[in-house]
Amino acid sequence: MNTFEAPADDVIETALALADIARESTLRYFRRPLDIHRKADRTPVTQADRETERAMRALIEARHPAHGIVGEEFGTRKAQSAWTWILDPIDGTKSFVSGKPLFGSLVSLVHDATPVIGVIEIPCQSERWVGVRGRATTYNGAPCRVSAVEALDDAVLLATTPDMFDDADWAVFQRVSRAARARAFGTDCYGYGLVAAGFSDVVMEADLEPYDYMALVPVIEGAGGTITDWDGAPLTMRSGGQVLASATTALHDEIVAAIADARRAAP
Amino acid sequence: MNTFEAPADDVIETALALADIARESTLRYFRRPLDIHRKADRTPVTQADRETERAMRALIEARHPAHGIVGEEFGTRKAQSAWTWILDPIDGTKSFVSGKPLFGSLVSLVHDATPVIGVIEIPCQSERWVGVRGRATTYNGAPCRVSAVEALDDAVLLATTPDMFDDADWAVFQRVSRAARARAFGTDCYGYGLVAAGFSDVVMEADLEPYDYMALVPVIEGAGGTITDWDGAPLTMRSGGQVLASATTALHDEIVAAIADARRAAP
Repeated sequence: MNTFEAPADDVIETALALADIARESTLRYFRRPLDIHRKADRTPVTQADRETERAMRALIEARHPAHGIVGEEFGTRKAQSAWTWILDPIDGTKSFVSGKPLFGSLVSLVHDATPVIGVIEIPCQSERWVGVRGRATTYNGAPCRVSAVEALDDAVLLATTPDMFDDADWAVFQRVSRAARARAFGTDCYGYGLVAAGFSDVVMEADLEPYDYMALVPVIEGAGGTITDWDGAPLTMRSGGQVLASATTALHDEIVAAIADARRAAP
Repeated sequence: MNTFEAPADDVIETALALADIARESTLRYFRRPLDIHRKADRTPVTQADRETERAMRALIEARHPAHGIVGEEFGTRKAQSAWTWILDPIDGTKSFVSGKPLFGSLVSLVHDATPVIGVIEIPCQSERWVGVRGRATTYNGAPCRVSAVEALDDAVLLATTPDMFDDADWAVFQRVSRAARARAFGTDCYGYGLVAAGFSDVVMEADLEPYDYMALVPVIEGAGGTITDWDGAPLTMRSGGQVLASATTALHDEIVAAIADARRAAP
């Protein structure tokens, strides 16, 4: 493990305040008629997304003017800062526009390259996971812990959608996930919370951006789990978007090996 | 429309009481360690499923001893009765075992071949849709209405999982669903509630059993929507398991035609 600067109480407070802003702001728009814009990639992006990120950025700029910010909607500010906030006001925009109450808001604080705070806030559910590097992850204020599942054929495996996999990744995902006890879809960031709380055992996804996964790292690790890319390498701002989170190291190692096997087996 | 015998108040009360039983019983088990059995098809089946269906059947047998019952877990009773209750205590067992709070309980009353009552109960969410043939569907007690979306490229389309489609159905589903404005997965019966309430616009699924879809018919129709098989034919106890629910007839007709086109285009 790298040495790292432990986050001080004031930045933890900011992270929680950002999650509060996200909850209140997104709920004002949820299940209400929206002026839905379209990005080039056809992801539905909502007024809620933009307005929420704007309010979150304003809080950071007021409290921590020297810190950097990376947001899905409004790009990067002060990229050279040692401390950078990474924001995703609505993780699961397709859930949001369909009225599914499991979309989340993600807040992360990265020190140099290391995510030291991560918050998964689920506005509709009043559920929140808070990960702070070096501490136990909390779920609604109480410490939580991953499951003890050590084998893929005992594991419940989650992913958001087949649409996140290109053809090669889909072939690998199919082969690996079909070896699980059960697989289920449609989870967005909520799936990582389910793993951190011990309700599910694995999330295997691809095509994620840093604002989708950096917050997940302290949450999963602080709950005793393992989260890396599909090769078992730590997630960084430059990872390729493949993410694997597992309850136990035995389970994680089995899946990383199964991924490597599946790639070799591919045509 | 066929003539039909309107359900009397006492059977509507029974339907609501069955949903209450399902909510209370399933929540006792949700996110708790389970003795998970496996059926031959590897669907996880839980103690909760069996215990809940047992309690629901006991209520029907006490209140309506002449009525038939079809349940997922304990089979069929009095198949020749004009009135038959169709029960699915946990629709979305994979959601249930993964800790996702969107699993549902389904209650339907069928008179001869026509579903005349349908209840979609979402225990974790305190959300309930009640459809009674000839009346407006209610969502948490208030009348609800489908959206006005008339074109697939404006529609949000839902499905539970790619695992419900065989190769031919998957090819058709891919072609049709990719023409929607957005598609999202992981909804189980909740998706039909989202369409009935006007939050989403289409659900397109396959491999469903009568206990998965009969309750949906009065809910969708009473909210102003259309629900049929993929050919546009009414759903019956003998339908093949392909289900299509749409907010408007224009949208439904467009999708039924797109399905026929996609089938012709298939290799």
